[in-house]
Amino acid sequence: MNGRLISIEGGEGAGKSSVMAALRSVLERRGLDVVVTREPGGTDTGEAIRALLLDPSGTLCAEAELLLMFASRAQLVREVILPALVRGAWVLTDRFTDASFAYQGGGRGIDSACIAELERWAAAIKPDLTFLLDVDVRQGHARIAGRDGERDRIENEREDFFERVRATYLQRAASEPRRFRVIDAGAPQDVVLRNVLDQLTQAISGWK
Amino acid sequence: MNGRLISIEGGEGAGKSSVMAALRSVLERRGLDVVVTREPGGTDTGEAIRALLLDPSGTLCAEAELLLMFASRAQLVREVILPALVRGAWVLTDRFTDASFAYQGGGRGIDSACIAELERWAAAIKPDLTFLLDVDVRQGHARIAGRDGERDRIENEREDFFERVRATYLQRAASEPRRFRVIDAGAPQDVVLRNVLDQLTQAISGWK
Repeated sequence: MNGRLISIEGGEGAGKSSVMAALRSVLERRGLDVVVTREPGGTDTGEAIRALLLDPSGTLCAEAELLLMFASRAQLVREVILPALVRGAWVLTDRFTDASFAYQGGGRGIDSACIAELERWAAAIKPDLTFLLDVDVRQGHARIAGRDGERDRIENEREDFFERVRATYLQRAASEPRRFRVIDAGAPQDVVLRNVLDQLTQAISGWK
Repeated sequence: MNGRLISIEGGEGAGKSSVMAALRSVLERRGLDVVVTREPGGTDTGEAIRALLLDPSGTLCAEAELLLMFASRAQLVREVILPALVRGAWVLTDRFTDASFAYQGGGRGIDSACIAELERWAAAIKPDLTFLLDVDVRQGHARIAGRDGERDRIENEREDFFERVRATYLQRAASEPRRFRVIDAGAPQDVVLRNVLDQLTQAISGWK
């Protein structure tokens, strides 16, 4: 496949949206066909699953949460990501399988071997490049505290949950250093964006 | 656990509802605490998933279909079935994991090893007794043709799909003869119900 899949990962308040917008802009200026999507969601089915997953009044068990995440992902891969990659597009996704390892594995305690097995046949692909926007849990939460609207079911978790999520993300990044670029997302936004774009340029030059 | 889990399986038009009602009635007359449920569904989350799965306009990939089935099942087991079994209730369920082997495995062609792995950690339990209501595919479809309402997404499949579903159910029954009771559901209803209740009595006497 000629296209590339780039995922943007990180905890609450890490600034994924700004990074997604900056990446999209710089890739489109290079004349590339860019597809932007998100997880859970990105398809009609996926957005319906997202509503179930994030409903603040919901009471999902950890296993159902993981399976719903992968149901959304399986559909997104087959309906959106693979067709885009085949035609040569660059796909930017706000979260992908690493988020399941971090949230349902690290956060909820599901065995990572179960998640790896779902990754193999349900997700079926891995990103070419993953930006991990790493930020101190309290600093991230202070950022989202200013946002309007009710917190969703996962945002309502306790601080130790998010510490486990962060630690799992960092472990995964350390174990796959060629795929991951860890960005200090506690820095000022202009510094974060410059670092992301520098790392993108480095990664692309490595692919040629 | 003191309770028992009994699943009722079978293709379209096999007469599961009548068998469920007869089993419920006979167990309640014995003074047992009986819980009746269905798949996909049986919980608020499960019923929302059911709507996604059966939407006739939906375009789910096979993997997402399987994962949604198991998301519903994982929630049903933890929210309804396990608590009922722990308190000593008898749970009757209209379909359980065998249906995933039959429909998503046999019907859609997903590797049964993937389904067995989900059965291990997501379903986590097996029925004590499974009634397979076996009926010729055309005879079953002739029965549901008279029902009101639009056909759902799975009922709209082609005949060869249902032949594979039936064959997979029969293979599973043959491989687990102690758990399965295969009932000729093409027989008149009074004969079917008498056979089911005879087999129930036999199974219960074996458990004592």
